[in-house]
Amino acid sequence: MDEIIELHEQIKTLIEERRYKELKAILSEVNAIDIAEALNGLPDGCMRMAFRLLGKDQAADAFVAMEHEEQEFLIRSFTDKELVAIVEDLSVDDTVDIIGEMPANVVARILRSADAQTRKSINEILLYPEDSAGSMMTPEYVSLRPSMTVEEAFDKIRRVGHDKETIYTCYVTENRRLVGVISVRSLLVAAKTTTVAELMHENFISVKTTDDKEFVAGQIKKYGYLAIPVVDGDDKLVGIVTIDDAIEVIEEEATEDIQKMTAITPDESPYLRLSVFKIWKQRFPWLVLLMILATLTSKIIGMYETALSACIVLNSFIPMIMGTGGNAGSQSSVTVIRGISLGEIRVRDAFRVAWKEMRAAIIIGVTLAPITFLKVMYLDGLYSEPDGVVISLVISATLVVTVLVAKLVGAVLPILAKIVHLDPAVMASPFITAIVDALSLIVYFTIASSFVPALA
Amino acid sequence: MDEIIELHEQIKTLIEERRYKELKAILSEVNAIDIAEALNGLPDGCMRMAFRLLGKDQAADAFVAMEHEEQEFLIRSFTDKELVAIVEDLSVDDTVDIIGEMPANVVARILRSADAQTRKSINEILLYPEDSAGSMMTPEYVSLRPSMTVEEAFDKIRRVGHDKETIYTCYVTENRRLVGVISVRSLLVAAKTTTVAELMHENFISVKTTDDKEFVAGQIKKYGYLAIPVVDGDDKLVGIVTIDDAIEVIEEEATEDIQKMTAITPDESPYLRLSVFKIWKQRFPWLVLLMILATLTSKIIGMYETALSACIVLNSFIPMIMGTGGNAGSQSSVTVIRGISLGEIRVRDAFRVAWKEMRAAIIIGVTLAPITFLKVMYLDGLYSEPDGVVISLVISATLVVTVLVAKLVGAVLPILAKIVHLDPAVMASPFITAIVDALSLIVYFTIASSFVPALA
Repeated sequence: MDEIIELHEQIKTLIEERRYKELKAILSEVNAIDIAEALNGLPDGCMRMAFRLLGKDQAADAFVAMEHEEQEFLIRSFTDKELVAIVEDLSVDDTVDIIGEMPANVVARILRSADAQTRKSINEILLYPEDSAGSMMTPEYVSLRPSMTVEEAFDKIRRVGHDKETIYTCYVTENRRLVGVISVRSLLVAAKTTTVAELMHENFISVKTTDDKEFVAGQIKKYGYLAIPVVDGDDKLVGIVTIDDAIEVIEEEATEDIQKMTAITPDESPYLRLSVFKIWKQRFPWLVLLMILATLTSKIIGMYETALSACIVLNSFIPMIMGTGGNAGSQSSVTVIRGISLGEIRVRDAFRVAWKEMRAAIIIGVTLAPITFLKVMYLDGLYSEPDGVVISLVISATLVVTVLVAKLVGAVLPILAKIVHLDPAVMASPFITAIVDALSLIVYFTIASSFVPALA
Repeated sequence: MDEIIELHEQIKTLIEERRYKELKAILSEVNAIDIAEALNGLPDGCMRMAFRLLGKDQAADAFVAMEHEEQEFLIRSFTDKELVAIVEDLSVDDTVDIIGEMPANVVARILRSADAQTRKSINEILLYPEDSAGSMMTPEYVSLRPSMTVEEAFDKIRRVGHDKETIYTCYVTENRRLVGVISVRSLLVAAKTTTVAELMHENFISVKTTDDKEFVAGQIKKYGYLAIPVVDGDDKLVGIVTIDDAIEVIEEEATEDIQKMTAITPDESPYLRLSVFKIWKQRFPWLVLLMILATLTSKIIGMYETALSACIVLNSFIPMIMGTGGNAGSQSSVTVIRGISLGEIRVRDAFRVAWKEMRAAIIIGVTLAPITFLKVMYLDGLYSEPDGVVISLVISATLVVTVLVAKLVGAVLPILAKIVHLDPAVMASPFITAIVDALSLIVYFTIASSFVPALA
């Protein structure tokens, strides 16, 4: 990190002092990804100058790793020739990503700079629905024919390999239909005259263009692939998705889940790039919805107003009871939601989950009760109140029931959501809390009215 | 998924009917990872039998993908010869993973089945601290010398490649010191007489054995590597970490963050494998701690008991105010925590974050206020109460202040935690809520006592 900041300062100084040759030599020794990071935040002219000093491959690698705002600025400052050089070196999926973030006039310039074949590929990929395998794939794979010998295969790999996203897994096709997958590793160890058909794996896994990107990432991870082939409705190979894109999807999906679990509408942009208005849009509707839901608790407390006036001390424990119920419920719901996301919990596990949560809730409730009793009696000082022991017992009993209810609701609601094809992540803390708040109040007042003498 | 269940049933039937040949033919056509999944939950004898029908490579691949309980059962049922065959095919890092989950007598058998070199590697890796790069690396990489020609390099790759975790990135060493990294891709396109020294990249990134595994995964992702070299204190190459392990770490870390954010002590085991007692251990201490923290809210409400008796209607809005404050605070804290995890927010961004959250909070508060006023007046029916308008205004004003306080506390606390080297994830919803609960009550009662005539 510190080295990047140092490099950033160094670039600035050397450009201001016009020591370009020196800077060029320094940059040639640095990893392109680090250069992208060091360029971040440089004054515009300075960044353009530094970028021009990069070697061709380094420039393309650094360009892909830059922020979209900086990419846009650079594209606008490029001559047509410079832009052609960069676009030539970009992979199709990276180009599609960049296009997605650019204004129309920049997109038009990028497309004009691409060769006809690339432009065609880009336009095809842009037609696939967002979040589909088709939208994230790249057509830059190596395809082989089953009848090729190992030697012929290597000739082809050498010939076309430079522009391909990966050469380590090659795809064997017959009339564009995918019939096998073969690794460069197995080609390397085989005799030169062996045919591709003899070596290829036929038990390969592929995905469809319409599959969800989360599913695609999951398959790559599950099968330990470096890339997964994408086929169309006729089983024709149309592209591949590589493992680096899978990592991005896995991280994005976790972020999305976390956002939904906290009552935030997901947005993929990095936090510091989000405008205040976008933050408002992500958060405000949920706060309003949850506030309206809280009407329920107000109504319940209102119903017991007379009881509360008669024994006002009951009142001060409401937040503690609701809080514990909410926390207990969130623990369960978030655990179950994450389990569903990771594929560890399936709908058919619903009863096992409920049974496990029930037992956990009982143990937690029973161990929590004596601690609660002592806390309420001595920390909150109920021992000196009239009916102090009874009220402490009521509160402890309420917690036992509340924890049980909260954990069952928390565990079951996400699975129910999954069954009716809603997103389980929405059934997380805030909603569970809103429901559990109301339930815990009912439990509290019901138990209290039966046992506290002042309310009789 | 359905195909796996079908395969599972088919295996069971064919084994019961002793149609082994038929089953063997069927299994040979299936991906090893799918076989592992289909074997899951088969009766013990049935699973052992089916496993014996697998080809050598398939058996090793399926074995690695199985659950630890099943691996243990299989190891116990293996003859020494069978175990040697499996252990031989396992990579060192997979073996280390499996050893970590087995009882001592099984570990001893596994180690006895490994050859001397592998046993030595395993013992070395086991000495590295948990969660370090050293503990997750494998020594199975291809190393080349700078003076080798491309042809010699391929000879070596062919000779040693079979047992290596990856051959696609090779590591160039001099007296075991790592001096360069070279891809098979660049070797493939180069002339046979070129030397490795001419082709290798010297601007490579490496990690140290003591680096945290989260950092290692982050570097692999950032630099788009398939594997990253791990060096010791003297810059000597000791192993590599591959991208599939990085994916696992990234997913685990997200799960850990989610667990901590929900007041659960992280545990890596899949939910359905967790005992009820372990669930209790993960969750109970936090519930107790948060319950004790709630003493604060009880005390604050207790302090205003007289005021509340005088105007009992104020009471029923406490949960709604605390809830909205808690939700607003969680939105900010969770956003910031995730941003820190993803490296999007750094300590030096603290003021930018606070400033952004403050503006967002003001817009949210100001737009929430009129909705709150209408809800309290008409949905909760305050319009018919004495002082209804004043109380509705007090509640709306309280929410504006509470949202602002909650968002600032929620945004700043995780960054403060980061500064003092605590885990930011612990500063999530439950703790923010406990703090915001207390603060929102103080705001509420302060505003109410100043404006509600009944309290004057």
